[in-house]
Amino acid sequence: MQTPAAGETPAPTTADETGGEEDIETPLVNVQRRPYEKSAHLHPWKAWMVGRPLRTVDAPHQTIGKAVGLAVFASDALSSTAYATQEILVVLAAAGTLAFGYSFPIALAIVTLLIIVTISYRQTIHAYPNGGGAYIVARDNLGEIPAQTAGAALLMDYILTVSVSVSAGVAQIASAYPELYEYRVYIAVIMVALVMWLNLRGVKESGTIFAIPTYFFLLTMILTVGIGLFRAATDSLGMVIDPPHLEILPLQGLSLFLILHAFANGTTALTGVEAISNGITAFKEPRSHNAGVTLVWMSAILGTLFLGITFLAGHIGAVPSEFETVISQLARTILGGRNVLYLAVVGGTTVILIMAANTAFADFPRLGALQAADSFLPRQLAYKGSRLVYSRGIVWLAIIACLLIIFFKASVSSLIPIYAIGVFLSFTLSQFGMAVRWRKIGRLGPDEEVKETGSVLRHDPLWRNKMLVNGFGAICTGIVMLVFAVTKFAEGAWFILVLIPTLVIIFFRIHRHYKDLAKALSVENYLPEMSRHTKDIVIVPVATVHKGTLAAMRYARRLSENVTAVHVGLNEIEDTKLVEKWKIWGEGLPLVILDSPYRQLYTPLLTYLQELEAKKSPNELITVVIPEFITRRWWERLLHWQTADLMRKLFITFPDVIVVEVPYQVEPVEPGLGLTSLD
Amino acid sequence: MQTPAAGETPAPTTADETGGEEDIETPLVNVQRRPYEKSAHLHPWKAWMVGRPLRTVDAPHQTIGKAVGLAVFASDALSSTAYATQEILVVLAAAGTLAFGYSFPIALAIVTLLIIVTISYRQTIHAYPNGGGAYIVARDNLGEIPAQTAGAALLMDYILTVSVSVSAGVAQIASAYPELYEYRVYIAVIMVALVMWLNLRGVKESGTIFAIPTYFFLLTMILTVGIGLFRAATDSLGMVIDPPHLEILPLQGLSLFLILHAFANGTTALTGVEAISNGITAFKEPRSHNAGVTLVWMSAILGTLFLGITFLAGHIGAVPSEFETVISQLARTILGGRNVLYLAVVGGTTVILIMAANTAFADFPRLGALQAADSFLPRQLAYKGSRLVYSRGIVWLAIIACLLIIFFKASVSSLIPIYAIGVFLSFTLSQFGMAVRWRKIGRLGPDEEVKETGSVLRHDPLWRNKMLVNGFGAICTGIVMLVFAVTKFAEGAWFILVLIPTLVIIFFRIHRHYKDLAKALSVENYLPEMSRHTKDIVIVPVATVHKGTLAAMRYARRLSENVTAVHVGLNEIEDTKLVEKWKIWGEGLPLVILDSPYRQLYTPLLTYLQELEAKKSPNELITVVIPEFITRRWWERLLHWQTADLMRKLFITFPDVIVVEVPYQVEPVEPGLGLTSLD
Repeated sequence: MQTPAAGETPAPTTADETGGEEDIETPLVNVQRRPYEKSAHLHPWKAWMVGRPLRTVDAPHQTIGKAVGLAVFASDALSSTAYATQEILVVLAAAGTLAFGYSFPIALAIVTLLIIVTISYRQTIHAYPNGGGAYIVARDNLGEIPAQTAGAALLMDYILTVSVSVSAGVAQIASAYPELYEYRVYIAVIMVALVMWLNLRGVKESGTIFAIPTYFFLLTMILTVGIGLFRAATDSLGMVIDPPHLEILPLQGLSLFLILHAFANGTTALTGVEAISNGITAFKEPRSHNAGVTLVWMSAILGTLFLGITFLAGHIGAVPSEFETVISQLARTILGGRNVLYLAVVGGTTVILIMAANTAFADFPRLGALQAADSFLPRQLAYKGSRLVYSRGIVWLAIIACLLIIFFKASVSSLIPIYAIGVFLSFTLSQFGMAVRWRKIGRLGPDEEVKETGSVLRHDPLWRNKMLVNGFGAICTGIVMLVFAVTKFAEGAWFILVLIPTLVIIFFRIHRHYKDLAKALSVENYLPEMSRHTKDIVIVPVATVHKGTLAAMRYARRLSENVTAVHVGLNEIEDTKLVEKWKIWGEGLPLVILDSPYRQLYTPLLTYLQELEAKKSPNELITVVIPEFITRRWWERLLHWQTADLMRKLFITFPDVIVVEVPYQVEPVEPGLGLTSLD
Repeated sequence: MQTPAAGETPAPTTADETGGEEDIETPLVNVQRRPYEKSAHLHPWKAWMVGRPLRTVDAPHQTIGKAVGLAVFASDALSSTAYATQEILVVLAAAGTLAFGYSFPIALAIVTLLIIVTISYRQTIHAYPNGGGAYIVARDNLGEIPAQTAGAALLMDYILTVSVSVSAGVAQIASAYPELYEYRVYIAVIMVALVMWLNLRGVKESGTIFAIPTYFFLLTMILTVGIGLFRAATDSLGMVIDPPHLEILPLQGLSLFLILHAFANGTTALTGVEAISNGITAFKEPRSHNAGVTLVWMSAILGTLFLGITFLAGHIGAVPSEFETVISQLARTILGGRNVLYLAVVGGTTVILIMAANTAFADFPRLGALQAADSFLPRQLAYKGSRLVYSRGIVWLAIIACLLIIFFKASVSSLIPIYAIGVFLSFTLSQFGMAVRWRKIGRLGPDEEVKETGSVLRHDPLWRNKMLVNGFGAICTGIVMLVFAVTKFAEGAWFILVLIPTLVIIFFRIHRHYKDLAKALSVENYLPEMSRHTKDIVIVPVATVHKGTLAAMRYARRLSENVTAVHVGLNEIEDTKLVEKWKIWGEGLPLVILDSPYRQLYTPLLTYLQELEAKKSPNELITVVIPEFITRRWWERLLHWQTADLMRKLFITFPDVIVVEVPYQVEPVEPGLGLTSLD
């Protein structure tokens, strides 16, 4: 159930095309390749839970046409028609029901914006045939700070897409079955968990699976809007019967602020329009052309539906409510009650909303992986798990989305104030980046070509027009973003305006760490000091004398002539016993007892090692040989100090200290201790 | 704030008396002692939180006289007068207020039982001058199963002592300040946390600190009871004015069961009587004599107070209530209202209850340490922290006691059904153990002596009488325990009756693990195989080529001629880069690339090692040299895979495999990474 689009850049784990099973022999280097074809040792329950491992070569390759492409990429954009109209009405309600009349003009303004954005994005699709998401476009044309800003904004908005879409889906269910209203938070959380689970399994997706619900939704919705418009035209469409209760207290007069606020809420209809520009590689050739046509189709359907729904909602006197969605009111008024057709509309809307959430489950980890590959997020996020999915990103997305749902009690109207700012910020950055790109192209000579990471700059005689289109788009979406920030500021948008720069700072802090580390570890201009250490000082920390200790001592003696056993003396009686045993088993090795009057274990060892380091000559290396016995059952480990582990962590902080662990298996132990289940 | 009694056995960490700073030289063994007098590196906030480290030689040595001894050991026993009467009335209320008349006869029966237990325990004190708690007596005379049963019962009851005493203390506060009633759970949890904190700090306690509140409580209580009895005798004591509301619905007739149930509730007055027998070593010589006299005094005061309170409660018509304790009703009726004297009584009662909880904080970890030293609990519990206290036991006690308080909403009446069964089970086992001991003494000749772990068996002409006294005590407390189990079964006692055997089984399971392990690791009859391994196979897992990798390879080459680098191939592009780098930096070492089509990391390594183990000759040892770079800041570690750590855990499960970690400090790192704060 994943968008088959492979990513904004060519997938880093491409198939093995060099026939990797034979040996590669070069005169300089002895490299042997060993095939490893066995699948993981997987517990049956785990196999069922997370799915069988998939081989890298099994990554999806098939490309899709325009009809399936529409189904795959449109769910996010089209699903927003399920709540955009309602969220306009919610704001207007503050000025009384009469203000509802402004909803249609507002919708017209939003559709105008949609057209501008669509034209603008069509240019991006043609310029970036390998995928031109806001992150890539901003990175290539504006620099790192705008790119990370776009990344932060989008990551945040993908999370909100999950929270908002699932909450809206549950609101549809609760409209049809009001008795479920009080369980809405539980239902929403279970749905997120379900979508997460499907994504973790990494089921081999096929566009067809996406096509069925998308076209079912489109069919029922077009039918409803069509019948509605027909009945409205023939004056046979009445008012909504028994509308949900709405407290009509004109709290404030109708102001420009209120209208702008309603407009800002309604622009959530535009979320998801950018999806196709991320997934161009999934289309059949000529892919830019096909993707561009699909984008235009999608926007046309979205605009028509949105206008139709908003018009009809006003016509029947629909009322925004937490208990019954506007879609539900519309469907039962137009279709004549809560019949099968009504259930089909509500069901189709629910499914498309869940699919929109599913899209975010593909987009969020993919963007996270891109940022991780650029070292702005923990690199682990760039690692595809054995099911060919970015498991970490999927799990984090689900957790944060669920927390938001719980915090906002699965209320779409409560979530809307913090939604879509990120999308419009990324729209703005992306369009502005494109404008900059056209400016660069304008400076090229007729046959010049410049290769960038994600695209190729080629002379284009129309560069000035295209720059104006993208620039105009950037200005429009930028203004909308400002309207967002101002009108929704007090309701929660302030949080986003604080969060985005904070995230960007964190991303750069992470980036600096990786850069500094790479520099410190780099072998460039590095002269290895082969012969610096010629002698070994070996110490063996000893608690008591047992077979494990003896094994460690045996290994220590193989390493050096200079072996000293060290014991921390916590207890006089035990110390005496140890000395007695040492006489028999110590093999003449010196034993140092570090008295610890405060019964500390690590501090005396630390001090001892520090003294040793201060005394030793620079060509000496200190090797600490730690005896450790390995028990078989997990709970048995709880019955022992984890001293070996802690000593290790203590010693590896010293320069010129090597830590050797000599394990002693008390009973035969299962190799790996189940660690391979992490794979 | 700890009972200065050092323990049921001589403290295992005795002072260093051999003047440990010089070297011990024996012809056979080279042992060096190094003083370590520096205190720990302690963050200032930690020093304040948990107190400065204390040296082993600073363990308390002072002994105390009878008056201070009474103060130190009596708080647990005396504090139970604060709730025992009330809990009798709670049960009788089921048969209507008229049934309250039975409370005094029941109290008389309980005091008779107290006399029997006191006489019985006096004999134990004389027989075990080094401390004769139920665990020691049962272990020495009855065997391991009864000893562990006593241990389980007592550990559980120490937890309940904390929960019940603190809840009862909070009930006193809420009686004086009813507006605090709704915050009782919070107050109780904060109090437990406070007592835990004081105990973790391990403040050098002095008996005097204990004497002040204990004698203050005694003074105010004797005054109240004295005035009450005087006013009752002069007929000037009226009924309690404005008693708290009690729903008097005679739910059931007065039955033998009900009276026995009330009796069972009242016997909670006896909890804490055993405290002196645990702490005999704290008394001045002749310690058995002094401890015995203190025990008799304590029981006399306890019995008198309990009878007086019960009589007066009946006289004024006190009513059991969750909102006002019987002590509060008594104090305001006798002392003429909520005046300063009243507040002194209620305050004194609260403080003595908190002190009773504090006693459990000394007893619980001490018993846990004894059982751990006998290998029936995780051995870590036997380790005294740097503040000379058993920190682990203290923290566990606080956590479980708080959970019980939260679960039972700090209601004493709800906690009582599961309380005191453990105490009476340990009473019974202890007395029965003493009876068996006298029987053994009876078989001794006039001059024979047998040394046991905790005591010496010597001929005693009165053995038969003493056996009868302890035997009678055992039978009485045994019967009471049965009454408990039957009358409180449905209310919660069933849980205890399931829990105790479960705990005993767990204790024995732990014991078996330690015994098996000791046997497996023992060097007795062990012929070390000095020369088995003569050759080394060394493998170096390599992710990329950096300075850390090169350091590991350098070390690997010192170990053996047979070094192979192993890389798990997750990504063709990265693999090619690695091979390129290997040509320059690989120093001609063979590199094996394990193809991992499922992008697994650990499974291919595991398989490779298994194959290597199968192929190698028995005299070969496999050494895995793992490169690991060490970052300075904790959050930087989150930005990297913890592969080194996980590989280590994977490899040490193999026999004949040694794991070497070669750390590479990217920047100078603070030695120890703060690990010494664990000391």
